Amino acid sequence: MRYLVLEGSATAASCALLEEEKVLGEFFVNIPQTHSQTLLPMVEGLLKTCALSPGELDFFAVTRGPGSFTGLRIAMAAVKGLAMAAGKPCVGVSTLEGLARNLTGFEGSALAVMDARCGQVYAGAFALRKGEVEQYPFGEDAALPIEELTQWLEKMEKPVFLVGDGARLCYNRLTELQAEKGSLRLAPPHLCCQRAATAGAAARAAWARGEAVEAGALVPSYLRLPQAERELLARKEK
Amino acid sequence: MRYLVLEGSATAASCALLEEEKVLGEFFVNIPQTHSQTLLPMVEGLLKTCALSPGELDFFAVTRGPGSFTGLRIAMAAVKGLAMAAGKPCVGVSTLEGLARNLTGFEGSALAVMDARCGQVYAGAFALRKGEVEQYPFGEDAALPIEELTQWLEKMEKPVFLVGDGARLCYNRLTELQAEKGSLRLAPPHLCCQRAATAGAAARAAWARGEAVEAGALVPSYLRLPQAERELLARKEK
Repeated sequence: MRYLVLEGSATAASCALLEEEKVLGEFFVNIPQTHSQTLLPMVEGLLKTCALSPGELDFFAVTRGPGSFTGLRIAMAAVKGLAMAAGKPCVGVSTLEGLARNLTGFEGSALAVMDARCGQVYAGAFALRKGEVEQYPFGEDAALPIEELTQWLEKMEKPVFLVGDGARLCYNRLTELQAEKGSLRLAPPHLCCQRAATAGAAARAAWARGEAVEAGALVPSYLRLPQAERELLARKEK
Repeated sequence: MRYLVLEGSATAASCALLEEEKVLGEFFVNIPQTHSQTLLPMVEGLLKTCALSPGELDFFAVTRGPGSFTGLRIAMAAVKGLAMAAGKPCVGVSTLEGLARNLTGFEGSALAVMDARCGQVYAGAFALRKGEVEQYPFGEDAALPIEELTQWLEKMEKPVFLVGDGARLCYNRLTELQAEKGSLRLAPPHLCCQRAATAGAAARAAWARGEAVEAGALVPSYLRLPQAERELLARKEK
């Protein structure tokens, strides 16, 4: 089983080709250029280097969110296009689960956090045990104020590794609140970014659970309304 | 400070662009194609995607060994060519130190091991403490029989994470010898391969120690003679 994974939920962008659990290749960039300029040429370069065409793949996966609304749309549109053209199914995975899977092999918990601005983070809480990554029932993906993470922290196995672009922000705030009790760790820098290869591990699990869908049925998971819609609602309420 | 890192010491091949400690981009493949077909086109794709040319970089780094003699030569020749054309210095780093740096953030020790065939492994032993990676004085890069690793193991901080393509081989043999006393771990699969990005962390440290050299002075570190020379010597000794 071979599959291509695209990740465009933040500033970094990446694509990976996997065969079962083996990473055949990965192309990652973390530069200011927009994903609309980088992502598809990267896919082309990766497929060419690995001597594979979209028709030779079994499915196409993408991180469906949370994350940058535009970034998610670009990666998802690209995956839908590839899947439709190749007549293959799609798998959408949580950006936060992908981040947590960067820490596969650590023992304790992963608190995946992305800066959602306006005092909020996108967050998901995961147990890390013996090479497995499992989301806590109380730690489903959500957009919430950093302060509310203290309720999750109490219930998570220690130590808790913060991962994602909101890690430093949450570390500082939670330490201020003395919610950490010495058990908070920052994930090592080389494991702190979203990566298509580790999102691939989430995609393989979703595929095994039968979560593949047709390209048309794949939808992003923004977790909250876009800023423009939030502002419109706020104006209507006045 | 920007630099390009090439890694070609085993079946996988990769290149990475870094700015200080930040990975601007990485292109990795783990396929049967020879590095002479993949590595330079990958470098070209990476530079193009990041909108950088060799002349805009400060130095060029490469894993100098141990590893596949041909793979090392291809990556090193490419780096020498790039550095000479751009008039910039080179930095050579240990493949084993690069592997150990995959485990930055873990606590304990890293035993980096590559299958050197003929009952031997290339090995290096590193302490992992508070995000730092430091080679043990007794664990300098060497080609040796797996059995001799038991002497290193006794002196290493626990747990000991085995990393590299010799990890499973060593895990099985050392467990057979009951040398592990429950403290041996296999590195998680996504951190077990040589990667240019983590070799880049080793290159940055070497650059800071003033170890940059002219392209002509960069030499591979094979740790033992090529098979053909070993066989020739054996015939002469008969």
